[in-house]
Amino acid sequence: MTLRPINRDLVAGVDVGGSKIAVLIVDAELGVHARHAIPTAIGAPGTAAQQIADAVRATADEARIDVARIGAVGVGVPGRVDPVAGVVSLAVNLGWRWLPLRDDLEAILGVPCAVENDVRAAAGGILERGVLGPIRDFVYLSVGTGISAGVVIDGSVHRGTRGLAGEIGHIVVDADGPRCPCGLDGCLETIAAGPAIARAASEAIAAGRRTALATTGNSDAAAVYAAAAAGDSVATEIVNRAGRALARAIHALVMTYDIERVVLGGGVTGAGLGFLRPVLSELDAMRAASELAAEMLPPDIVEISADGREAGSWGAVSVARARASREEVVAREALA
Amino acid sequence: MTLRPINRDLVAGVDVGGSKIAVLIVDAELGVHARHAIPTAIGAPGTAAQQIADAVRATADEARIDVARIGAVGVGVPGRVDPVAGVVSLAVNLGWRWLPLRDDLEAILGVPCAVENDVRAAAGGILERGVLGPIRDFVYLSVGTGISAGVVIDGSVHRGTRGLAGEIGHIVVDADGPRCPCGLDGCLETIAAGPAIARAASEAIAAGRRTALATTGNSDAAAVYAAAAAGDSVATEIVNRAGRALARAIHALVMTYDIERVVLGGGVTGAGLGFLRPVLSELDAMRAASELAAEMLPPDIVEISADGREAGSWGAVSVARARASREEVVAREALA
Repeated sequence: MTLRPINRDLVAGVDVGGSKIAVLIVDAELGVHARHAIPTAIGAPGTAAQQIADAVRATADEARIDVARIGAVGVGVPGRVDPVAGVVSLAVNLGWRWLPLRDDLEAILGVPCAVENDVRAAAGGILERGVLGPIRDFVYLSVGTGISAGVVIDGSVHRGTRGLAGEIGHIVVDADGPRCPCGLDGCLETIAAGPAIARAASEAIAAGRRTALATTGNSDAAAVYAAAAAGDSVATEIVNRAGRALARAIHALVMTYDIERVVLGGGVTGAGLGFLRPVLSELDAMRAASELAAEMLPPDIVEISADGREAGSWGAVSVARARASREEVVAREALA
Repeated sequence: MTLRPINRDLVAGVDVGGSKIAVLIVDAELGVHARHAIPTAIGAPGTAAQQIADAVRATADEARIDVARIGAVGVGVPGRVDPVAGVVSLAVNLGWRWLPLRDDLEAILGVPCAVENDVRAAAGGILERGVLGPIRDFVYLSVGTGISAGVVIDGSVHRGTRGLAGEIGHIVVDADGPRCPCGLDGCLETIAAGPAIARAASEAIAAGRRTALATTGNSDAAAVYAAAAAGDSVATEIVNRAGRALARAIHALVMTYDIERVVLGGGVTGAGLGFLRPVLSELDAMRAASELAAEMLPPDIVEISADGREAGSWGAVSVARARASREEVVAREALA
């Protein structure tokens, strides 16, 4: 006997970003029925749930799926989330504070919903889908507008006492580095996150340095990685500095948690090999210098997420599935 | 019915250091029956078990305790330990490699023995004895000849995939810092461990800087902290640099693990307030600069271990108790 009605055979995972909402609709075997990324500026907290619900409906409509088949919705949000209360405590980049997103969404969609931090959701998704095979100790390191880590220890997502475990973007890596919006100087994010790479390029241009970036007038992180790949020396310097900082952060994560794998994801990793090469090169240098580093950083210690830009929405799918299976347990107990 | 014979009512915890062996003998209620620290250079691997057994016997004899009352012995060793195999894989400062210390000790003493990394043992001891009350997420940060962390997450000691979780002494904190014996430059240990503090003093003296340390001819870490407390400016500069690095390491541990407390122990913390003040002062500066740091580093985030120099031997006591209770389970199952 299945307790999930046949018309509720799908779940939706929603990855909420600063400039887009990405939706995946999958079945119980994780077969993809629809995927859609809607470029949209997420609005004020009051309209957020409606925007997310609209995105889910638009994704279903586009794939000619009856939205009534969706039995649960999981949402990943870049910020602090209390998944038990279903509340986004603080999402700086979205301008949300104490938003009861789960209840708002359930009121609109009429199905069980759940909310989680996007990076932690992605780590949980990698775990649930067995993307890394038997590996049960790993970190999903997201490098995008911010930098943070979703940590899986012994097959469980590690949250920490305040739900902030893995917030390594604000670890100081260069005390003489740029001032971070958090107030400290030289946080990892001020050197290796997307906006930091873009800012370093702007500063180089403003300082009159010769670089191809000055003529394109475009210096977002992707453009800087592209220029570096094309041999631009200023861009190369910037991406090498970011790569060094990330490699040391990876080393620090491995020395602290003693994990088996660091999976890299997030917008900046979209530069692919251009992103990875400076990281690998610094890891090589550390291995060559130190026997201990060589042991702790085996050649397969890092990989770019096989999910590419969908690590977040796959994570949100896992959040939805976990919620749906809790519902099922409750339903079963009510029947028993 | 008690399965532990009445004449096996005590356990011994042994903390093995580079220059001393410290022994605690306690009863089932953790009442101390004997404590003894034997200043001795621990010898070659072949004599290590005998030296430890002798230290246990000497401690019992001194307190006029029949050594036959000791039902289990736990040993904490500064190095890599495989507690399941009972083997010390590598203890650099003791010159041990693949030493089957547990079996060697059991052959001499004839009672169940167990071996664990000293810092991890200390963390487990703090947990078992409830030293921090209800806190179940904390780090025991040992600052001595080396620096490493024993990590307790959700009431369990976290080992990591290679048993090396918490080896943060070899995280790079200043890429332009001194060369570390591990091969990397500017590891935390090269700035804040005891030998690093002593070396910084020697270098200042060799460079002809005016400091009281030059006249005493003694520049171990304790002497440097004493000189700083007496107002010596060179010594103050050295301990402030160490304190800053430790404060940043504490911040990094909290941001990574999201723990509630960092308990400081190890030889260097013997300098007490002189040790703690520069650490607290840097933590204050981070709190003042950053709202996030202020939230993550509440005023009670750090404390010096209440066990003082006995954190290691109390940890070894817990290792012995865990071994004894496993024996009891086995005995009970054999009887059943």
